[in-house]
Amino acid sequence: MFEMTAVLKSFGEEMRRAREHVAREAVLTPLVESSSINERVGTRVLLKLECMQRTGSFKFRGAYHKVASLPPREMERGVVATSSGNHAQALAAAAKLFGVPATLAMPFDTPAFKLDRVRRWGATIVHYDRYRDDESAVGEALARERGAARVHPFDDASIISGQATVGTELFEQAASRGVRVDAMLVPCGGGGLTAGVALAARATSPETQVFAIEPEHYDDTARSLRSGAIVANAMGQGHRTLCDALMVAQPGTLTFDINRQLLSGVAVVSDVHVREALRLLVQELRLVVEPAGAIGLAALLAAQVPVNGACAAVIVSGGNIALPALEELIIEREAMA
Amino acid sequence: MFEMTAVLKSFGEEMRRAREHVAREAVLTPLVESSSINERVGTRVLLKLECMQRTGSFKFRGAYHKVASLPPREMERGVVATSSGNHAQALAAAAKLFGVPATLAMPFDTPAFKLDRVRRWGATIVHYDRYRDDESAVGEALARERGAARVHPFDDASIISGQATVGTELFEQAASRGVRVDAMLVPCGGGGLTAGVALAARATSPETQVFAIEPEHYDDTARSLRSGAIVANAMGQGHRTLCDALMVAQPGTLTFDINRQLLSGVAVVSDVHVREALRLLVQELRLVVEPAGAIGLAALLAAQVPVNGACAAVIVSGGNIALPALEELIIEREAMA
Repeated sequence: MFEMTAVLKSFGEEMRRAREHVAREAVLTPLVESSSINERVGTRVLLKLECMQRTGSFKFRGAYHKVASLPPREMERGVVATSSGNHAQALAAAAKLFGVPATLAMPFDTPAFKLDRVRRWGATIVHYDRYRDDESAVGEALARERGAARVHPFDDASIISGQATVGTELFEQAASRGVRVDAMLVPCGGGGLTAGVALAARATSPETQVFAIEPEHYDDTARSLRSGAIVANAMGQGHRTLCDALMVAQPGTLTFDINRQLLSGVAVVSDVHVREALRLLVQELRLVVEPAGAIGLAALLAAQVPVNGACAAVIVSGGNIALPALEELIIEREAMA
Repeated sequence: MFEMTAVLKSFGEEMRRAREHVAREAVLTPLVESSSINERVGTRVLLKLECMQRTGSFKFRGAYHKVASLPPREMERGVVATSSGNHAQALAAAAKLFGVPATLAMPFDTPAFKLDRVRRWGATIVHYDRYRDDESAVGEALARERGAARVHPFDDASIISGQATVGTELFEQAASRGVRVDAMLVPCGGGGLTAGVALAARATSPETQVFAIEPEHYDDTARSLRSGAIVANAMGQGHRTLCDALMVAQPGTLTFDINRQLLSGVAVVSDVHVREALRLLVQELRLVVEPAGAIGLAALLAAQVPVNGACAAVIVSGGNIALPALEELIIEREAMA
């Protein structure tokens, strides 16, 4: 377990460098507000549009900072990672921008859309079974085999510092409009984005409460925080969620340790509310968002986070979904309504 | 013909009031930039996302300001308009927000998507044939019949002043980032948005050159400017464009008079480049944009406007298209590539 002051001190300098790296190539994504969405939710909601980020998700921030931070000799040997899609795409893009070879291990059931995008960045793909294989073992074996650096999708100080830039940007954007963010809702898989945003809040906006939002059946961070130690999801039991980008085995050691000290809470959200959020984002803001990216707004629609008329900010973390797949999610919801 | 100083003086006060009205209910739409799009176009491009505007297009600005400016007695009698869809939706929403009854005459071939949205705002719809009927006569007859105020989609000082707020916002957003906008590309149908943005540029950013962008076969503003007098499109000859929102019979008297004095030029763009722009906006920014909304970016892709490495701003004017229709436009383009 880390002592928070020491963690913050160690992250401070790295977060500053991450900011510099990220500013070079990432999109300064907008923070938007919609009166229709505010009315629907019953509170003021600011949406940070990471679906507009390069490679379609916030993951580009961490991956780019990580690759930018590699020593020259490691850059030559290349990078490997296991990923459900967004980290793979982000790492493939970051590696390409530095001329670094990349190999990605991705689950068999990754949407074809995400596989195509990774291939377009010139990376090599190998497959694994996310319900049976041990993701960590897959990553380690691949790194050994290729003599390459393994870039963990979340349990890495550089990755967390890269993701923290979303939070820092958001707090600066809100402050420049004179808005105080009371509650911050962050999609949570392995906890890298959550930890990064929590660190950013502590440094830049300490009055903000940070909440992790998880999909049903993949509430490992919620259960781990309750039990005080890392608890894994039941990956082999056929549980599914629309939020494929948030399906991980368990929280990371580093992410869990940060999140247990800095989070104000965790909410768990069902697919029904995710669909409703997706539909609202298309209808009101004409945004293509993937299910995981809509889970923060879904938590507000489901009243899963105590906001009480204050100002909430949501990270719309990614938009990597094909249009027909999104249409199907929204239509089906309409039929159910 | 108006003398420009007098026009500016008369618009100055109305543009200020429009700004106040619009700030109440409209979305402060983001101005975004994508390094991938910059690289593709070969120049720096700022995109003003009016596809995120309330009712999905910039038209809400003009319609809301117009309705807000009506005397109480006219509000009671209601409003009518002819519109290919976006003005109808905007006027229906604005009217609803003020409790004013609205009747909209819309072309038979308006996308069903747009008709549905107008109905959802509680407005009454009647149909006309945009290739045979005289739109102006349809509007006048409807206003007489209902005893209601006719809200012209573009040839109206209040509407133009409302649309001008897009430009003023954009120039302020750019200035706050220390960016000088050299060229401004504006989708042009009847010329209301173009005239509004040109007036805003003259007032706020006089160093910016403003260009109107029209679709092939509907280049009435280009031809009118060349001939020095208003020239109509050949509406009856079966010419089609993907940009249904820009299909009008001819420029307005007021819009033409402003545009002929303030525009730096007009570019005419083919559907091929519109599709390419739509695809880029989905791929890079996960935005649902309708064809007319992509025509500014299309003009840059087609190198139809002299930018020469300077900074261009584009108004992404609307996003009112169903996902399957957008998918079809993008897929078809991929098959052609």
